[in-house]
Amino acid sequence: MTDTDFQAQLTHYKNSIRPLLLEAVPESETSPYLYGPARDFLDQHGKGLRPALCIATCKAFGGDEKAALPTAAALELLHNALLVHDDIEDESLERRGQPTLHVRYGVPIAVNIGDAMNALVLRVLMKNLERLGPSLSWQVVAEFNHLLLQSLEGQAMELGWIRDNACDVSEGDYLGMILKKTCWYSFIHPCRLGALLAGRRDLERFHAFAYLAGAAFQIQDDVLNLNSRSGAYGKESCGDLWEGKRTLILARAFETMPSNERVRFQRVLAQPRSRRLERDVDWMRSVLEQNGSIRYAQQVAAEFAKAAREEFDKAFESAPDGPDKHFLRQFADFMVERMA
Amino acid sequence: MTDTDFQAQLTHYKNSIRPLLLEAVPESETSPYLYGPARDFLDQHGKGLRPALCIATCKAFGGDEKAALPTAAALELLHNALLVHDDIEDESLERRGQPTLHVRYGVPIAVNIGDAMNALVLRVLMKNLERLGPSLSWQVVAEFNHLLLQSLEGQAMELGWIRDNACDVSEGDYLGMILKKTCWYSFIHPCRLGALLAGRRDLERFHAFAYLAGAAFQIQDDVLNLNSRSGAYGKESCGDLWEGKRTLILARAFETMPSNERVRFQRVLAQPRSRRLERDVDWMRSVLEQNGSIRYAQQVAAEFAKAAREEFDKAFESAPDGPDKHFLRQFADFMVERMA
Repeated sequence: MTDTDFQAQLTHYKNSIRPLLLEAVPESETSPYLYGPARDFLDQHGKGLRPALCIATCKAFGGDEKAALPTAAALELLHNALLVHDDIEDESLERRGQPTLHVRYGVPIAVNIGDAMNALVLRVLMKNLERLGPSLSWQVVAEFNHLLLQSLEGQAMELGWIRDNACDVSEGDYLGMILKKTCWYSFIHPCRLGALLAGRRDLERFHAFAYLAGAAFQIQDDVLNLNSRSGAYGKESCGDLWEGKRTLILARAFETMPSNERVRFQRVLAQPRSRRLERDVDWMRSVLEQNGSIRYAQQVAAEFAKAAREEFDKAFESAPDGPDKHFLRQFADFMVERMA
Repeated sequence: MTDTDFQAQLTHYKNSIRPLLLEAVPESETSPYLYGPARDFLDQHGKGLRPALCIATCKAFGGDEKAALPTAAALELLHNALLVHDDIEDESLERRGQPTLHVRYGVPIAVNIGDAMNALVLRVLMKNLERLGPSLSWQVVAEFNHLLLQSLEGQAMELGWIRDNACDVSEGDYLGMILKKTCWYSFIHPCRLGALLAGRRDLERFHAFAYLAGAAFQIQDDVLNLNSRSGAYGKESCGDLWEGKRTLILARAFETMPSNERVRFQRVLAQPRSRRLERDVDWMRSVLEQNGSIRYAQQVAAEFAKAAREEFDKAFESAPDGPDKHFLRQFADFMVERMA
């Protein structure tokens, strides 16, 4: 499977949930400050990684694609709901090449839109009832509840570090945070859910693969954030430094930089975003480049991806070969080779 | 039943859900910026109207109090989750006599805490499974999904009016907004849910009573907001005017004031909260007092309460007399007689 095939398959999965996703947003009462902006946001086309992982895992284990669609759509909807609130919490200015919702509509309306998108997730999950029955549908809800709370706990860790201006966040702290914030909801549970819907009960078998692939994805995302010039990546260039995010890159730098540089970092990061200066962000960026922290993170992402490939074979050993398993095998590589 | 008896009964219902409420917030991973503040917020003691309505309705129709407890606790938890985000959206400074969460922890962390409290609601509702089974538990979830989306739609209307600086909001617009924002989640669904858990299926019978009682409550709340000096009411005095909220009082004033006064109102309300002046708020307050808009709202609240009492007898006619029905009968009066 070439990279083009992988992208084509990703697009196929994304398109398959699209009707459910748009149908989830009420049409009749499109308040100009609620469902309208929510629909526009969903229309802006994320990558669709989470539904793809869920559907492909379900099919790889012999499950029916149709049985996975509401759950996959709900994963994508929840992801979008989280992004709306994340962007407020991080004071991000751009998302998918557009101004973020709170930049367009103000924080109050954007908080409310995120809440509504979150509430619509359950509405989509109620569609499971007809095909899966009430008991299995409840199991799906329990999976969602776990992934959401884990993500919010990870977010609380990250926001707490920024608020406390923590400059002793270790690489281990960072890896623990992204397990919570990103890996459960974006990788581990999509695999678990896909397998659950294919009738499997041994859901822990995906944890190592999905965690490793998820960590590779997140670390690569941090690297892209600093390495991309605006446009291609869809987010503000160096947004993480503007926002003061504690990434693996920063954790590595804290561990290795001389103390005078560290003191200056701490002073710059102590400023709220609105008072941070462009020259300070540029300075931080150049230090992270020159002391090898960005390169280090790239290497770690590549190692995580390699480990994920090894764990893949164990996680999916009982799934017969086929296009879906093949697609999933490409996942770890895609995590670090993607450019946006 | 005297007012003291009513309060004692309210306290009894509130205490009965307290263990479930606190148990819902994870103890083990009390992130200082997540579960800790959530627990403190829940500890600040709201009035507990929603769980009381739910439990009393269930018992009035012969249902078991125990069967209603998780649902009642979930209503209270969701109410608290909504308050956290409402306070952010309204830029409120005080709640229950304390600084609001976003004042204490900043908007990013407060948004995330509200999200977590919202997610914990489902965790509490999952407790229904054991006693109610998966099908009835799903019906409860469907009720919650409706009440939450209605409330968020009402909130979008209210926030949209503020954003657009709408100065032609009519009394009818206002009543439609509070039906969505407040009445469904605070009054109609608590009755519906209580009856559902007592085995009733004719849930529409509560709509008129609960809407009328809810409107009386909300209008009285608007009046208290302008009439209370700080302290007793637990919220900032005249907070609604600081926040630019479109209340029945304001709608009435818009309809009746001379056009030069209306132009000045519009100019003052066009300012964002941070630039509104105390003397402008005082001026608005005095106009609303002098032109009778506050008194008018008090009369409307009293009329809604009277109509609610009449509808009560129809809604609960098949419930035998007893302490729970008696408590519910007092509800409409309490809505307008309360001082906080």
